[in-house]
Amino acid sequence: MSDADERERRAWTYLAGVAEPPSAAVIALVDAIGPVDAADAIASRSVPRGHSAVLGATEPRYATDTVDADLATCDRLGVRLLTPADDDWPAWPLSALDRATTAARGGRPLALWVRGPAPLGALGDAAVALVGSRAATSYGEYVAGRFASGLAAQGRAVVSGGAYGIDGAAHRGSLAAGGLTVAVLACGIDRAYPSGHARLLEEIGVRGLVISEYPPGTTAAKHRFLTRNRLVAALSGATIVVEAGRRSGATNTAAWATRLGRPLGAVPGSITSATSVGTHAMIADGQATLVADVDAVASLVAPDGEDPRGPAPMRSTDGLPRDQFRVIEAIPAHDGVSIDEIAFSAGLRSDAVRRALAGLDVAGLVDEDRGLWRLRR
Amino acid sequence: MSDADERERRAWTYLAGVAEPPSAAVIALVDAIGPVDAADAIASRSVPRGHSAVLGATEPRYATDTVDADLATCDRLGVRLLTPADDDWPAWPLSALDRATTAARGGRPLALWVRGPAPLGALGDAAVALVGSRAATSYGEYVAGRFASGLAAQGRAVVSGGAYGIDGAAHRGSLAAGGLTVAVLACGIDRAYPSGHARLLEEIGVRGLVISEYPPGTTAAKHRFLTRNRLVAALSGATIVVEAGRRSGATNTAAWATRLGRPLGAVPGSITSATSVGTHAMIADGQATLVADVDAVASLVAPDGEDPRGPAPMRSTDGLPRDQFRVIEAIPAHDGVSIDEIAFSAGLRSDAVRRALAGLDVAGLVDEDRGLWRLRR
Repeated sequence: MSDADERERRAWTYLAGVAEPPSAAVIALVDAIGPVDAADAIASRSVPRGHSAVLGATEPRYATDTVDADLATCDRLGVRLLTPADDDWPAWPLSALDRATTAARGGRPLALWVRGPAPLGALGDAAVALVGSRAATSYGEYVAGRFASGLAAQGRAVVSGGAYGIDGAAHRGSLAAGGLTVAVLACGIDRAYPSGHARLLEEIGVRGLVISEYPPGTTAAKHRFLTRNRLVAALSGATIVVEAGRRSGATNTAAWATRLGRPLGAVPGSITSATSVGTHAMIADGQATLVADVDAVASLVAPDGEDPRGPAPMRSTDGLPRDQFRVIEAIPAHDGVSIDEIAFSAGLRSDAVRRALAGLDVAGLVDEDRGLWRLRR
Repeated sequence: MSDADERERRAWTYLAGVAEPPSAAVIALVDAIGPVDAADAIASRSVPRGHSAVLGATEPRYATDTVDADLATCDRLGVRLLTPADDDWPAWPLSALDRATTAARGGRPLALWVRGPAPLGALGDAAVALVGSRAATSYGEYVAGRFASGLAAQGRAVVSGGAYGIDGAAHRGSLAAGGLTVAVLACGIDRAYPSGHARLLEEIGVRGLVISEYPPGTTAAKHRFLTRNRLVAALSGATIVVEAGRRSGATNTAAWATRLGRPLGAVPGSITSATSVGTHAMIADGQATLVADVDAVASLVAPDGEDPRGPAPMRSTDGLPRDQFRVIEAIPAHDGVSIDEIAFSAGLRSDAVRRALAGLDVAGLVDEDRGLWRLRR
């Protein structure tokens, strides 16, 4: 890494933690003068005219330099800090957060801490958010799991919040079907929250994607859940509420989907179930479309039979044999990796990885160069 | 009864059975020349110019005179033949069947055979049809029963088709809450169809209303169920489908409600339940509004808080003590009846009837004249 790259990386890391995300003031400053100068300006308390708001936003934290610690944590956990300067930055999905009607309640993130092999840019409109009550019923968990595995079979990523109940069932259903699942956290990416999902989040970080806009060490807090919900909705082509009580956090994610102009679906259930009161209200009010099966979800994402997934990288992995899918998901977006590294990430034996790579090579999806395998662009 | 009245009654009875209902040709002839001349014309096979279609429609039955038998059956069962000449005829609800878009698939009935104490004209917009699968689940039957008793508590009549499953649960729920329930049959009013509902239909005939447009003796047949469904929808201010499979008869009733411009509601359920596939499809397609409780049904019948029940007779029986309600429902619309007759109809002991009548008298709802009690208008 060049000195300039390294300076930029340290600047982004500083900026990503210097104010409670999302900070419109910090983002505006970075947009105006770039990350390196923005970091210097904030640290030295001498910001350009018209950017004085950034001083207040960064006052509590500007003097605490956690850059070395954050970078060490990232290296240890295999986390990368994704910024708008990266090819992989999901600029289009996140741009909806900058519209006047939504920015006031949470604009685009400055940067995202990301753990996992898949390119974030591959999500596109193909991703579906499956969200719902933490206090889910067995019916709700069953539906979430079934929808998630069905979406995985269609090559669609499943986005959720990593929580107990519907979120967990959605992640597990996607993983079980060999799909790509994305957990968006309301705490630092080094934290396992909830603690009972430590192993699940670990697996998602290896086979899927764990994402957070909060710097390492940040604890989960109520306002962060609400802020996080906007990312779940923004990173998904559609949001499906599987179960929600009258005052479920899922109704907040649903509101974000609506605000962002994304299709919103809701799953019906027994009218005697408290965790279907919220979904029924959304359907009855016309806010959400009733979805009773995976096909209905698919047509919500792609009305009129159009396939909004387009020629995105995920497309080419549709219908791959399970091992090949796991292997390709274990190869990072921009780096070459050895067979041993792939075997570790994918949770497969080396000979299985070799066989899968041979198939992927024939299909034109991967390239080998001096023992390192990388995705073919 | 005067000779003229008697001649007219016999003419209507003949006309009601002389062609398979609903016969647009017979109705047109009656509209043109009145029932007595229409009956004579059909029987003598000499109909006015422009009415030759009636000859074909009545060819199989015109020579078989069942009038005496039909009248005897009616007298025996306490059935009256309601015609457009009666004050009680629900002209307004049925008029929707005569619109161009609906008449071709089943216009208004020529007449209705009616058994039970309540005036049919009292139904108005307050009536709600609760329909659904015969092969209902316990969930569906529970919901139908709960909605029916809730509607009864609001003073709303519950209309259904007398069938097993949802229909039966709806009728029972209304009866249990002391409400008025209406069974519209697809066979002659003297028939107990289905036979397992013989006692239920008997009770509805005593405390509610049993209705059919088919002459006594007519057997249930598939095409008659479809024809009957239009009356269920037409006699109700709104139709609610509680459970319906993909090809349920209830979807036909739902289609009629839509055709007639009446609000249509559907109850959601588990997406794993085959008997909710139909209701979910109606909601997802926007044909039906999701209704999850009785209040939602009520606002479907009366949007914006307006009360379409108006000052109808049913209104005054709202909130009556149970015995008083049963007694007032046991008094016919136009005739005076003795305490013994009321006791028999209401299924109450004479002393309970006397106490109830005293209360109703004080409330100004009934009048007594030489031992006969009648409704005060």
